[in-house]
Amino acid sequence: MFLLKLLLCLLLPTNANTIRLQTPHPLLSPSESMHQIATECDKLDVGTPDLYGDFHLENSFLRQFEADLAEEFGKEDAVFLPSGVMAQQIALLVHSKEKKKTSFLCHKTSHLLIHEKEGYSELCGLHAVDLPLTEQKMGISGPPLLYDHLLEAELDDICTLIIELPHRELGGKLTPWSDIMQMQHLMKEKDISFHCDGARIFEASVGYKKSVRELASPFESIYFSFYKGLASPYGGAMLMGTNSFCEEARIWLRRFGGNLYSLLPYIVAGKAGYLKYVKDQSHPTLSFGDKHQKLLRITDSIQKKGFETVGCFEPEVPEVNMVHCFLRLSSKDCIGIRDEIEDKSGVSIFHRISELKEGDKGWDEGYRCKFELYMGQANGSIEDEIWVNTWSDFIHLASDKK
Amino acid sequence: MFLLKLLLCLLLPTNANTIRLQTPHPLLSPSESMHQIATECDKLDVGTPDLYGDFHLENSFLRQFEADLAEEFGKEDAVFLPSGVMAQQIALLVHSKEKKKTSFLCHKTSHLLIHEKEGYSELCGLHAVDLPLTEQKMGISGPPLLYDHLLEAELDDICTLIIELPHRELGGKLTPWSDIMQMQHLMKEKDISFHCDGARIFEASVGYKKSVRELASPFESIYFSFYKGLASPYGGAMLMGTNSFCEEARIWLRRFGGNLYSLLPYIVAGKAGYLKYVKDQSHPTLSFGDKHQKLLRITDSIQKKGFETVGCFEPEVPEVNMVHCFLRLSSKDCIGIRDEIEDKSGVSIFHRISELKEGDKGWDEGYRCKFELYMGQANGSIEDEIWVNTWSDFIHLASDKK
Repeated sequence: MFLLKLLLCLLLPTNANTIRLQTPHPLLSPSESMHQIATECDKLDVGTPDLYGDFHLENSFLRQFEADLAEEFGKEDAVFLPSGVMAQQIALLVHSKEKKKTSFLCHKTSHLLIHEKEGYSELCGLHAVDLPLTEQKMGISGPPLLYDHLLEAELDDICTLIIELPHRELGGKLTPWSDIMQMQHLMKEKDISFHCDGARIFEASVGYKKSVRELASPFESIYFSFYKGLASPYGGAMLMGTNSFCEEARIWLRRFGGNLYSLLPYIVAGKAGYLKYVKDQSHPTLSFGDKHQKLLRITDSIQKKGFETVGCFEPEVPEVNMVHCFLRLSSKDCIGIRDEIEDKSGVSIFHRISELKEGDKGWDEGYRCKFELYMGQANGSIEDEIWVNTWSDFIHLASDKK
Repeated sequence: MFLLKLLLCLLLPTNANTIRLQTPHPLLSPSESMHQIATECDKLDVGTPDLYGDFHLENSFLRQFEADLAEEFGKEDAVFLPSGVMAQQIALLVHSKEKKKTSFLCHKTSHLLIHEKEGYSELCGLHAVDLPLTEQKMGISGPPLLYDHLLEAELDDICTLIIELPHRELGGKLTPWSDIMQMQHLMKEKDISFHCDGARIFEASVGYKKSVRELASPFESIYFSFYKGLASPYGGAMLMGTNSFCEEARIWLRRFGGNLYSLLPYIVAGKAGYLKYVKDQSHPTLSFGDKHQKLLRITDSIQKKGFETVGCFEPEVPEVNMVHCFLRLSSKDCIGIRDEIEDKSGVSIFHRISELKEGDKGWDEGYRCKFELYMGQANGSIEDEIWVNTWSDFIHLASDKK
């Protein structure tokens, strides 16, 4: 609890002029973000608010946005929801009722298993089978969900296979596309629904060098988030699938209490982020490809500065525009070094770091803390030289402390 | 479906200069409402957004708002949620787990039974027993939930009694306070939790001539809504109870996917509405008492114009600042008359009306449609003379059509 408080305090900027290498999106005050969305309402010509999900309207801004995204992803329909947690539980519930089975398969690091207080079982009455079944290779070089993992499991009772692309808890690793194809084939054969946790689907799209439409194609349902790569300041998610899937999803959205009186700020911020970062890109916005290239360049340069003496990147070569950074020093030591560098240069290397505990991934290999590095519009616009110099300082000071 | 579409179309203003007698809150465009909330962020000194419910922070804007409301209502703690649907299901789940029972009691017209797609059973696995058990007196003069109704029911399997104050579907009727006292006594004796659906608790507070603290006192948990009487443009709800109740509620909020990345627009709009309409009232804001008095005056004057020939108010004397209006003509005829009056005078008597079907409350007594009249800041500020003249015209034209 103390640690959590400490970490949350660290989220707050200490100095407005600090150059923050871990901050992906531009930092806006609440008032600034609300004014910005008000301006987007005018730009996007949103003249009336949505009401209770606009379920029975055909020409609302919300319904048009849903239809546009469904088209983009090659699905029949789409449903806007306030959160991804709700989106995925609803997807699982719809598939479960259809298949009349209550078990689903997912990777051990699935968001459902580690961040949602067992909502899938406590609230939805579903049962999770996590893969791989064995603990082998679940260390720092742990694999994403692979086709071979499915062969370990008893599939007869399973209604849904859920796969996260990219795997966030593994630093953005992607399941090889050939495995996805094999999985799809097997799922069809076994009459199991195939759902994609695509919270960061635009990141995955670049990693696979595929359009989101190609990427969504093997899946019966797929969701993505608006407040991650698309930088919406509040939240929001889109869930897509067949017409009947979405019709059922809207009923469940009502049951969850998720079709709020109005979701206007989420919808408008979400659409604005989607247009800015994906659809209607114009200079000086970085594409997801630009951000991935930048991260590849930066991590390569850092490794060439002797990073392996104090830490490592997971994966070593970022597959998308995110990566995890494991460090051999305690978080306390890392924070000390960070502050020393910041005082001197005005550049902060991270502001959010978490302590590893014995038994955590990487502990046995000597790592004591880690942080996530996500490349966005804000930190992606910081010159390479500043990145490399700051990390060089960090490596230098950390080597002395070891 | 057609009717629903029709009704939703009717929601849209036809003429910006029309005086709208059924519109309780000022109509703002999406952009205007968002700019207004941005301004409120500055006025309320909200410098940082909440993150995932701010569960582990002590000094956030959100947590302070929750603490202030808990204090106001005389409860130990409060939890802000995006919707009332979620708030009430969570309240029922927490009480159910504590009592290890899955049945709850509620009035036949409870929101849970008629507007939530059976979420309480389909999602939460709970069982509803609706009261009164008999259909007697459930016509147009149907009673609110009364103490006597409890005596009809088998109470051994019940974990929670839920009561709506005021009863929205009955035009804002209140259970007599002496019945609430008797209910509280019986619930204690039977070890049953007593929960208040206080969506419109500030309205009830005026009706009972009691502070919200007095009103909340008999209940172990209570919730209220920010987008009804408090006129937040988006949504939001506050659920209150003991510390342990709220601790559990926060876990369920996570399971429901309701602690969004940020609830900022809802929290700020909610607090602004609470200050404006309840706490820090200043001229020219109408109090809930003013609005109730206005509605009493208006309905009394309308009745004196011979309203009983074409319709009735339910209840005849409004107990709070809302009432239902039943009409003997078809909704098509009513819309025709409304349009005729609006063309002539620029005053619209209603914009949202629903058709009764055979079997609906009031059908056997000859009523064919109804609408809800809620007195708020906007329509409450329209001069009495305009109200009475417009209704007189309506009564006159409707009498001719009958």
